[in-house]
Amino acid sequence: MTTPATPVVRADGRAPDELRTITITRGWLDAAEGSVLVEFGSTRVLCAASFTEGVPRWKKGSGEGWVTAEYAMLPRATNTRSDRESVKGRVGGRTHEISRLIGRSLRAVIDVSALGENTIVLDCDVLQADGGTRTAAITGAYVALADAVAWGRRHGHVKGGANVLTDSVSAVSVGIIDGVPMLDLPYVEDVRAGTDMNVVVTGAGTFVEVQGTAEHGAFDRAELDALLDLAVAGNARLAEIQRETLAAELAR
Amino acid sequence: MTTPATPVVRADGRAPDELRTITITRGWLDAAEGSVLVEFGSTRVLCAASFTEGVPRWKKGSGEGWVTAEYAMLPRATNTRSDRESVKGRVGGRTHEISRLIGRSLRAVIDVSALGENTIVLDCDVLQADGGTRTAAITGAYVALADAVAWGRRHGHVKGGANVLTDSVSAVSVGIIDGVPMLDLPYVEDVRAGTDMNVVVTGAGTFVEVQGTAEHGAFDRAELDALLDLAVAGNARLAEIQRETLAAELAR
Amino acid sequence: MTTPATPVVRADGRAPDELRTITITRGWLDAAEGSVLVEFGSTRVLCAASFTEGVPRWKKGSGEGWVTAEYAMLPRATNTRSDRESVKGRVGGRTHEISRLIGRSLRAVIDVSALGENTIVLDCDVLQADGGTRTAAITGAYVALADAVAWGRRHGHVKGGANVLTDSVSAVSVGIIDGVPMLDLPYVEDVRAGTDMNVVVTGAGTFVEVQGTAEHGAFDRAELDALLDLAVAGNARLAEIQRETLAAELAR
Amino acid sequence: MTTPATPVVRADGRAPDELRTITITRGWLDAAEGSVLVEFGSTRVLCAASFTEGVPRWKKGSGEGWVTAEYAMLPRATNTRSDRESVKGRVGGRTHEISRLIGRSLRAVIDVSALGENTIVLDCDVLQADGGTRTAAITGAYVALADAVAWGRRHGHVKGGANVLTDSVSAVSVGIIDGVPMLDLPYVEDVRAGTDMNVVVTGAGTFVEVQGTAEHGAFDRAELDALLDLAVAGNARLAEIQRETLAAELAR
Amino acid sequence: MTTPATPVVRADGRAPDELRTITITRGWLDAAEGSVLVEFGSTRVLCAASFTEGVPRWKKGSGEGWVTAEYAMLPRATNTRSDRESVKGRVGGRTHEISRLIGRSLRAVIDVSALGENTIVLDCDVLQADGGTRTAAITGAYVALADAVAWGRRHGHVKGGANVLTDSVSAVSVGIIDGVPMLDLPYVEDVRAGTDMNVVVTGAGTFVEVQGTAEHGAFDRAELDALLDLAVAGNARLAEIQRETLAAELAR
Amino acid sequence: MTTPATPVVRADGRAPDELRTITITRGWLDAAEGSVLVEFGSTRVLCAASFTEGVPRWKKGSGEGWVTAEYAMLPRATNTRSDRESVKGRVGGRTHEISRLIGRSLRAVIDVSALGENTIVLDCDVLQADGGTRTAAITGAYVALADAVAWGRRHGHVKGGANVLTDSVSAVSVGIIDGVPMLDLPYVEDVRAGTDMNVVVTGAGTFVEVQGTAEHGAFDRAELDALLDLAVAGNARLAEIQRETLAAELAR
Repeated sequence: MTTPATPVVRADGRAPDELRTITITRGWLDAAEGSVLVEFGSTRVLCAASFTEGVPRWKKGSGEGWVTAEYAMLPRATNTRSDRESVKGRVGGRTHEISRLIGRSLRAVIDVSALGENTIVLDCDVLQADGGTRTAAITGAYVALADAVAWGRRHGHVKGGANVLTDSVSAVSVGIIDGVPMLDLPYVEDVRAGTDMNVVVTGAGTFVEVQGTAEHGAFDRAELDALLDLAVAGNARLAEIQRETLAAELAR
Repeated sequence: MTTPATPVVRADGRAPDELRTITITRGWLDAAEGSVLVEFGSTRVLCAASFTEGVPRWKKGSGEGWVTAEYAMLPRATNTRSDRESVKGRVGGRTHEISRLIGRSLRAVIDVSALGENTIVLDCDVLQADGGTRTAAITGAYVALADAVAWGRRHGHVKGGANVLTDSVSAVSVGIIDGVPMLDLPYVEDVRAGTDMNVVVTGAGTFVEVQGTAEHGAFDRAELDALLDLAVAGNARLAEIQRETLAAELAR
Repeated sequence: MTTPATPVVRADGRAPDELRTITITRGWLDAAEGSVLVEFGSTRVLCAASFTEGVPRWKKGSGEGWVTAEYAMLPRATNTRSDRESVKGRVGGRTHEISRLIGRSLRAVIDVSALGENTIVLDCDVLQADGGTRTAAITGAYVALADAVAWGRRHGHVKGGANVLTDSVSAVSVGIIDGVPMLDLPYVEDVRAGTDMNVVVTGAGTFVEVQGTAEHGAFDRAELDALLDLAVAGNARLAEIQRETLAAELAR
Repeated sequence: MTTPATPVVRADGRAPDELRTITITRGWLDAAEGSVLVEFGSTRVLCAASFTEGVPRWKKGSGEGWVTAEYAMLPRATNTRSDRESVKGRVGGRTHEISRLIGRSLRAVIDVSALGENTIVLDCDVLQADGGTRTAAITGAYVALADAVAWGRRHGHVKGGANVLTDSVSAVSVGIIDGVPMLDLPYVEDVRAGTDMNVVVTGAGTFVEVQGTAEHGAFDRAELDALLDLAVAGNARLAEIQRETLAAELAR
Repeated sequence: MTTPATPVVRADGRAPDELRTITITRGWLDAAEGSVLVEFGSTRVLCAASFTEGVPRWKKGSGEGWVTAEYAMLPRATNTRSDRESVKGRVGGRTHEISRLIGRSLRAVIDVSALGENTIVLDCDVLQADGGTRTAAITGAYVALADAVAWGRRHGHVKGGANVLTDSVSAVSVGIIDGVPMLDLPYVEDVRAGTDMNVVVTGAGTFVEVQGTAEHGAFDRAELDALLDLAVAGNARLAEIQRETLAAELAR
Repeated sequence: MTTPATPVVRADGRAPDELRTITITRGWLDAAEGSVLVEFGSTRVLCAASFTEGVPRWKKGSGEGWVTAEYAMLPRATNTRSDRESVKGRVGGRTHEISRLIGRSLRAVIDVSALGENTIVLDCDVLQADGGTRTAAITGAYVALADAVAWGRRHGHVKGGANVLTDSVSAVSVGIIDGVPMLDLPYVEDVRAGTDMNVVVTGAGTFVEVQGTAEHGAFDRAELDALLDLAVAGNARLAEIQRETLAAELAR
């Protein structure tokens, strides 16, 4: 890791610690109990939260709810077309891995007892992929989840005074490129990053997931620390955007 | 089939022979060689055309290209969430059937020799479903296909002077509700229709596919004729919209 | 569409509006509640109707029965061997599509309330394919269905005085070959047909399904009308054969 | 094993060492290079032999041919309907096991060098099952195989003077019922048999496969010997029937 | 079959009627109710018996228990790596066949009424394969089963005085190599054997399964008899080893 | 995170920063080019490295080799039996995720150019699971990989003077239990851990992967730092054990 003498400017003009333009459009779907189209630059993910009464069999009678997530990518979300997983007849490892990550991240801020025996499924479908699809998905899914919880309360499925959401949660990617730690990598940066980390953080600034991977060569403790600092700051800004978005009236 | 004494007004205020608001947004994706977001009222389908050089093995050396399509629905495109076909590990019958229909419809207006040994795959993913998803998909896919063909020509993959597209193609649903033939059915009308027909028509007004199904009780020749008349007129209007859309410069 | 000056004679010596030799052998299987071996020329389909008490979960308590169909082809039914769908691990699009068509066609003439909470599954397995396998399957399946309904009544599973079958149903293919509309196409004609249509008609002569496809070039309204006329006449003859077959004592 | 004082008569009137009525109808399919409908009493199996030039990749350049078999049962071949393996998406253990047995049995009488680099696939589809479906399949498949080999020679794909078939092969089931060894068990006897054995024998009377299973309690050496004697005699009769069948001109 | 003038010595120094070194290590797993690592020479199979209260739905209320088995091979158990069946998405024919054989063999010595409504699943995973994996699996699985039954009795799930195990069961392979019948074939002998037989025998010396296959050329009655003699003697020795193993205290 | 006044003693008597007994048995399989049975306490993983010449199609002509891994668990490795993924017909998300992690970890220390166009597949099969199966798998797989690379060099498939392995790699789990950071968690501790982290480290002490997950409540920076310290120290000890193991002659 080197400290550059002159300010680093990225291909899209951002400073190393700057997020891409973040847009979260609530209520993108008519039927879903919560839904957003979330954009991190050119990355676009449609997050739909489906609220249903009842829980899977293994949770019945527990008094607790269940939140889970499924992530997928449209075949032409990427530069070259990928085969559909439905046609291949199996869900790939990457898809599985990200679905599980999103689910765990959201469950970290859910009080399942306050939710009661209700289920919320988050579908995060990537319409266009330009790096950071999993972090955009987590960030958007939280907003859709919040709307679905509010729907459940409005319709009398969520009872009692306890907060279902104990905090907000968001995620951002960070990486080291040519020795410089950078925030929120688009695809062109992602492929060049020596180290790549996805960090999921609560509104309170504590960690939910830290997933760092050395893509080319291992990384040392100083690099790890610099990346964590960047990620915590980026997530603080994302939490602010989530708060502002949810403060607005949902026009439906 | 009865002729109503007073004018029939539909739930959404349309006349029986009136299309829903049709919107075709070109260039919705950055990477795809052709792409549109097509809307028939609340029905929204993302159509991406992927152009690649070369053809499947069984077409190699034929001098001819290949055009195919895949249709799918996001899990929460509908009122209640459906399981993902990728998770179920198999593509359902309805999905297969519609994918094949879209492919056949587009191939009806493609001159595969003029296309040369290139492949265009049309991915039609329903983001929101409110009836008529397959007809919206065909109508939008034609525009994406036209853009992909133009891309292929611009990049030198399509050679020679012959037109690759011999005509335009569009589709619309028609049905008989309470004895009245109606055009372009949203979901609430679709479930009530005694007879339901999807009609695929070329810009020249000839038939590519006629698929009529008696949902409740069979239909007679007069009803069939009335439905065909409605569909031909509706498709003429769709062809016009396609023409206008394609006449505009594609801002990318 | 041209009107030929001299009478058209087909490869197998038939007139354009003539069916192939139709044979329906009832009771081909010992155990099935209804079964026929149906032959349209060289096309041979074994149709087995399995009657069971009870209905799928989603119909329980409705007082209504359920009729469904599965179509499949033996690997060497065709000129060259096809891989088994069981070995490939998935049912193909064409198989799905035809299974659904047969099911819908039969349900059009079933009064599910009169059937009561019973299920009839029609298995239509193509032993030899020479064009028109789906139309032979529908035509034969109706006879097997009628025998299965009679079996259900004889064994006290179908109660009450109402007719379970509200009409008969049959199907035939029609197509335009070198400009001449022709009835009941064998394989050699099927591959040459510019337009290909499968028409499902009740005994009363009303339409249940009209599925027309332009294989090479679109078709106009006059051609469509000529094809429908041929199909209605052909189905009238098939309904007559079904009636005669069912009038005979079932020797078992 | 007891020696009954009075002659045992079976439900269908046969003596313990008597085969059911065996019928082998050659040329049942128009297109297959060899095909028979084989009947062992009510058990009916359609055996189709598909001859193709070339061999699987792992045999290429070996100068040797390849013979394989696939066995399957139609859903309503049995008393109660079974689900289709194509719909279940997987081939069951029993199906696999019998397919492998048929393949091994036929390969025991094939000189793969004399066959040359050609492949013959035997499809054995059970249309009606009344016990002994695997033994009927082997017995019928041999005849279809012989016709396919003759076809290959007639069409110049099989060259040289060497016999491709080194012998004939047939199979029959035997079992012990109430202490009495019996030949060629129909379903009602099969379920009652304490020990059940399928024995595949060449025309020369030597063993290709011996598969004995104690269904209820183990069996001793004397019982095994008695069953083998019965099976050898039964197969000698089947070999005779195969010879007579193949001696006739194949009317096609 | 010839009688050699000089004593035959096998590659590993054994006499033709000699078993490989047999080792059965009980209690190899901490958690399983019964478990052994069984070794036939270099062949190593881990057999785990899982005892659970209750039975599959179709046995409920019968008062009877259920014993079943699953066999599998690790990818690098063999000389060259095989693809995983989980990755291929389907269980192969050989795996199915052997799983079924193990299950039938064990059920032959189980009194399901004495077991009561309990289920024991035997997992036989081949860690290293050097011929005879299925016979080692059966021989080892019996010991694991005996331990699981004892566990069930100790924990009060198996009640009453009747023996659950009516006898012991073991299995061994035999084959004819260069005319000499030999016992317990390692891989190098297995591939050279003209005839190959797996024989499952009870402690009392009666047959449970006899599976003989002519790999190259058929075999005659004298050869069959010689192989059965060898197998019966080999299984008697295996039964002795099983008895000795089970007589020891299980140190856990 | 609290600093306990009295020393913490774990259920198995270890100090918080102490590894379980680590055993690495090389050459556990006869045929594999590299293989170890690795034990972290009661956790036992069989790691087999299969060396084959050539690379997957997408790497052909690159001059580079390929290293990949597959992880799986035997059905009764755990306290209660799990269904086999081969029988379920699909590989689960957790399995996919861990297979990918092992592959990435090993690739971090492989110089693919020095390896040349050869492929090494690491199969890591968990025979017994008591927490830390993925970290044991990585630690053991490195040793098997080293043996396979040596095999490749000894047999002339790996050429040139460059080191194929640029460093060693190992992994260990760490977690916070009742406020105390602990090293190398067995199952009973794993389920109680509020935060759970798997850390993959090179022999040089740099990070390859850091995967931290808040199981119950999020974690702060101080906790993260404490866990990383523990993990680095534990991995240093594992690297030492790997070195000692590999220093010994491989007795085969």
